[in-house]
Amino acid sequence: MAGFDVIRYGQAAREICDAGRFLYGRGWSPATSSNYSRRIDSNHLAITVSGRHKGRLAEQDVMVVDLTGKPVQSDCRPSAETLLHTVLYSDNEDLGAVLHTHSVKATVLSRLVPAGEHLVFEDYELQKAFAGVSTHEGRVEVPVFDNTQDIAALAADTRQWLADHPQQPGYLIRGHGLYTWGRDMAECLRHVEAFEFLFECELETMRVRG
Amino acid sequence: MAGFDVIRYGQAAREICDAGRFLYGRGWSPATSSNYSRRIDSNHLAITVSGRHKGRLAEQDVMVVDLTGKPVQSDCRPSAETLLHTVLYSDNEDLGAVLHTHSVKATVLSRLVPAGEHLVFEDYELQKAFAGVSTHEGRVEVPVFDNTQDIAALAADTRQWLADHPQQPGYLIRGHGLYTWGRDMAECLRHVEAFEFLFECELETMRVRG
Amino acid sequence: MAGFDVIRYGQAAREICDAGRFLYGRGWSPATSSNYSRRIDSNHLAITVSGRHKGRLAEQDVMVVDLTGKPVQSDCRPSAETLLHTVLYSDNEDLGAVLHTHSVKATVLSRLVPAGEHLVFEDYELQKAFAGVSTHEGRVEVPVFDNTQDIAALAADTRQWLADHPQQPGYLIRGHGLYTWGRDMAECLRHVEAFEFLFECELETMRVRG
Amino acid sequence: MAGFDVIRYGQAAREICDAGRFLYGRGWSPATSSNYSRRIDSNHLAITVSGRHKGRLAEQDVMVVDLTGKPVQSDCRPSAETLLHTVLYSDNEDLGAVLHTHSVKATVLSRLVPAGEHLVFEDYELQKAFAGVSTHEGRVEVPVFDNTQDIAALAADTRQWLADHPQQPGYLIRGHGLYTWGRDMAECLRHVEAFEFLFECELETMRVRG
Repeated sequence: MAGFDVIRYGQAAREICDAGRFLYGRGWSPATSSNYSRRIDSNHLAITVSGRHKGRLAEQDVMVVDLTGKPVQSDCRPSAETLLHTVLYSDNEDLGAVLHTHSVKATVLSRLVPAGEHLVFEDYELQKAFAGVSTHEGRVEVPVFDNTQDIAALAADTRQWLADHPQQPGYLIRGHGLYTWGRDMAECLRHVEAFEFLFECELETMRVRG
Repeated sequence: MAGFDVIRYGQAAREICDAGRFLYGRGWSPATSSNYSRRIDSNHLAITVSGRHKGRLAEQDVMVVDLTGKPVQSDCRPSAETLLHTVLYSDNEDLGAVLHTHSVKATVLSRLVPAGEHLVFEDYELQKAFAGVSTHEGRVEVPVFDNTQDIAALAADTRQWLADHPQQPGYLIRGHGLYTWGRDMAECLRHVEAFEFLFECELETMRVRG
Repeated sequence: MAGFDVIRYGQAAREICDAGRFLYGRGWSPATSSNYSRRIDSNHLAITVSGRHKGRLAEQDVMVVDLTGKPVQSDCRPSAETLLHTVLYSDNEDLGAVLHTHSVKATVLSRLVPAGEHLVFEDYELQKAFAGVSTHEGRVEVPVFDNTQDIAALAADTRQWLADHPQQPGYLIRGHGLYTWGRDMAECLRHVEAFEFLFECELETMRVRG
Repeated sequence: MAGFDVIRYGQAAREICDAGRFLYGRGWSPATSSNYSRRIDSNHLAITVSGRHKGRLAEQDVMVVDLTGKPVQSDCRPSAETLLHTVLYSDNEDLGAVLHTHSVKATVLSRLVPAGEHLVFEDYELQKAFAGVSTHEGRVEVPVFDNTQDIAALAADTRQWLADHPQQPGYLIRGHGLYTWGRDMAECLRHVEAFEFLFECELETMRVRG
């Protein structure tokens, strides 16, 4: 397989750096947590190097991997969770960006959902912010996967779930954070904002209702 | 009817873009939600094009509609909720701006108010921020309309309610957000700030009192 | 009585404008609420004109009044609460600045404290931020006055209370906000920050303890 | 013992000033609270002068002390809590920076933990942000020392505790705040962010669970 187009890599890297400044500024990627990726072509994606400060990303913090997660033209170590990104791109050729964030709200909610249950959003106008949703009358189900250091196993689990639920816009990992995706970076960022809004609505309601 | 004055359109559009930067920055218009309008003349208003990022509005994101909601000199699609704006301008010639925002607090409170009841503010000094209120000793009642995809029906309901309560400064739609208005953009923005302040006071009180 | 020094007025006005940008930015002076003052000399103070946006104050938004609250060399209308400022300056010649703010936390807490009781801070290290407090082992008592549109009566009440408690750094008005003061603007701003910190600590504790 | 390298002092001071702008901006060092230090060499550290505004630190707000806490080439008064810094540097030659912050969350949590108990973090992915932690499956224990004006006694207590628990990344003082440290300023700031994230997770969970 031939290499990747360096112009497209550069643009993907810039979009990732800009996303990082936004997400860190909101408090959703603290303390070098989180990882982000952007498709370059059918076999390559740009992804954040492991352990970098997400509010100060520059091009040297973004590397290229192929769809098996192997670094391409780089000695850097990609995010430990690279496989969670690559399975998403492998199974959906329209998917252009993946953001994994790590907010307080996502973390707390993911620990409060009982094992085996999903987080469910209903009757929120903002559900329409998710691609393909045109009414508040539907129901968005967000699965919560148990956290693990065995990323390959988790990647297989998420891949199976997505095959069964191709329209869902994201999932949570317990005590860990959110994965969401989109056709391009703008759509993916809109999904992060919508999820964070809905997480905060749910928590605020729980605070008040006790 | 003749066309609109393009200088006045340009000024209205700039005011809308500036309002968007402020409201998005506060977190009150996330994920391309919300819509804003500004009167141009007795038959035309400037209004946001459907689906745009509210923190990065530019002139191409603001179009003109007449008081029936029909686009004027534009092929863009206006906000799906345009009729909720036009009924306000039609019935009150002093009204110059309408802002529909979409905060977590407004969304959560609107879902907590029991069906058939209003949200009521009493004994808050900040009630004086609403036009025409000169004491904290009054009572501000905010109705909560059920959310619907039938905007024409909702427009008719809000119109009837406003005819009966001409002094009220805003209303909520359940799970959806706030509509408020003013003589000009500055007054309308002051109303948004006052509502958001009072929403947060009510929620904070509910959190503590349980 | 001779006029005031215009250079000192200009400096006082700039300090007030800068304070406004800070306090509005924190969300403590929303929707044209709040008023601020700075002593010019033994008989004059600079104070905000009524109804101005506190995040965008410029020199034309700051006027001069004498210690009876009468405008000096100005046709503007001073804040409706000017007398609450002047009684503080009249009785304490070392006092150089007064800030009245209007945060959600101050508003909510002031409504939760039972009638006739004070808000009390104990065992917080940050109590040392108040002028004259050198240990966390003391006790800061913050009275809560009932809100009223009769500012002259409220001014007399606060004056009496301060005569009896000369070391206290501030008071609340129910449903309305905080008054605090200092030798200069820097000390007064430090007091606002300390009060807001302590208000939030108290509310957070109440949220958790229920 | 010879003096310190002034170039290294200048760099340490700049890192402290930058840290202050960040920490104050987040609301974690309000009202002139907090103190920060950075190692210069085996016997000297740069530390904030007592009582300065942490969001506006400049080089004149950072002085040098030796490992006994005595000022070197300065007439300024170092932070009253200087000994809490020096015992950390004395016992760990790899330690390069110490940050004491003073957030609402740290203050409230430290008062809620029952006397004699520790705050414990378990099953949070973000525990991996602490140096030396490579899995979320461990357990981070944060002791809570009682607040006191006797800093020498508190310094001795913390020193003993650290000798017994050399891998722990920080501790709390009741009603007062957080102490954390790192090899360099970047690691130390990452620890502050991780602690604040975890404090907020714990409080949010307590709010919801009641």
